[in-house]
Amino acid sequence: MAVGLYVEVPARQARGVRVSAGQRVQVIDVEGGQVVDLFAFSAADPTEFASAEHTRVVVNGLFPRPGQDFFTNRRRPILRFEEDRSPGAHDMLCAACDPRRYELLGVEGWHPSCQENLQAVMAELGYGSVHTPQPINLFMDVRVKPDGSLMWGPATTKPGDDVTLRAEADCLVVASACPQDLNEINNYTPTSVALRVL
Amino acid sequence: MAVGLYVEVPARQARGVRVSAGQRVQVIDVEGGQVVDLFAFSAADPTEFASAEHTRVVVNGLFPRPGQDFFTNRRRPILRFEEDRSPGAHDMLCAACDPRRYELLGVEGWHPSCQENLQAVMAELGYGSVHTPQPINLFMDVRVKPDGSLMWGPATTKPGDDVTLRAEADCLVVASACPQDLNEINNYTPTSVALRVL
Repeated sequence: MAVGLYVEVPARQARGVRVSAGQRVQVIDVEGGQVVDLFAFSAADPTEFASAEHTRVVVNGLFPRPGQDFFTNRRRPILRFEEDRSPGAHDMLCAACDPRRYELLGVEGWHPSCQENLQAVMAELGYGSVHTPQPINLFMDVRVKPDGSLMWGPATTKPGDDVTLRAEADCLVVASACPQDLNEINNYTPTSVALRVL
Repeated sequence: MAVGLYVEVPARQARGVRVSAGQRVQVIDVEGGQVVDLFAFSAADPTEFASAEHTRVVVNGLFPRPGQDFFTNRRRPILRFEEDRSPGAHDMLCAACDPRRYELLGVEGWHPSCQENLQAVMAELGYGSVHTPQPINLFMDVRVKPDGSLMWGPATTKPGDDVTLRAEADCLVVASACPQDLNEINNYTPTSVALRVL
């Protein structure tokens, strides 16, 4: 992928970039207050992907922190979390939203979702239908209370906040500007984000 | 599945039972101090399965508690956690162990794993290769520190401790007596467990 490439991800949609091992990708919250569902797949084999449940075991923690790697379902590093220029809240516990999520929230008719966004991007990239992994939910403010219950808050990113990830393997990085507008995680107003290949 | 059926799960192995909606399954730690990696698949379609990442969002918590349902990757209830006659520690954060896990721990040659155990049982049941979901790790003592890091302890179950699950849909329930013998979760001594259909 051309260095310097800048890909706008419109509100409620997703885009993907191919990156080679050693390249860096910035994920930018352009307007602020927006969660990004991030996925990474091995370019050689999309059945290998960034996996929250494997990453937790290796890094021994619930939430992504700069300096750590994200690991695949084959326990290999795929992305390194190099730099964080945001308030630092990122979730690694929650499933991507999907049509059924919105149905359960009372939506009648179609509503965009991170799951469908991911599948559309992977199809465009020539990979057909893939397993929808649990995403890395950048900028999503989820906290754990002492009793193990979860608290959800609105994303507190400012316009232009970003994180930088280094590819540890040739991979496809997909960012979905989460379309959730029925709870506060995106401040009830989904907005655009962007990817920049460094 | 015949009511009253009792299935021994030898140490380091797995077994599965078919249960109809409304039937109950007990998972018994026969000798104590043993983690059970539990999986549940829709009998009609094994691409639908109990999913930790979806369950967390619905129940708003990290750890399974009696009274809650486990939900599938299609956000439908599949098992209800009816009764807990154990110390109450159950994990829903950690991936199943797999061959690569043991390779990374320095094991030379083959080591049994919950992933291979699951695949063997599903093949025997006629389902071929399936996605390995993140398991419900019964009796596994994982705790979260205030900084979000994880602590692991040995299972504290006594011989005969059990949990009772009610099937909310026709499903296959697979229990793997976790073969992990290189850390303390099974007190360094994997032992047998059992399933009883009520």
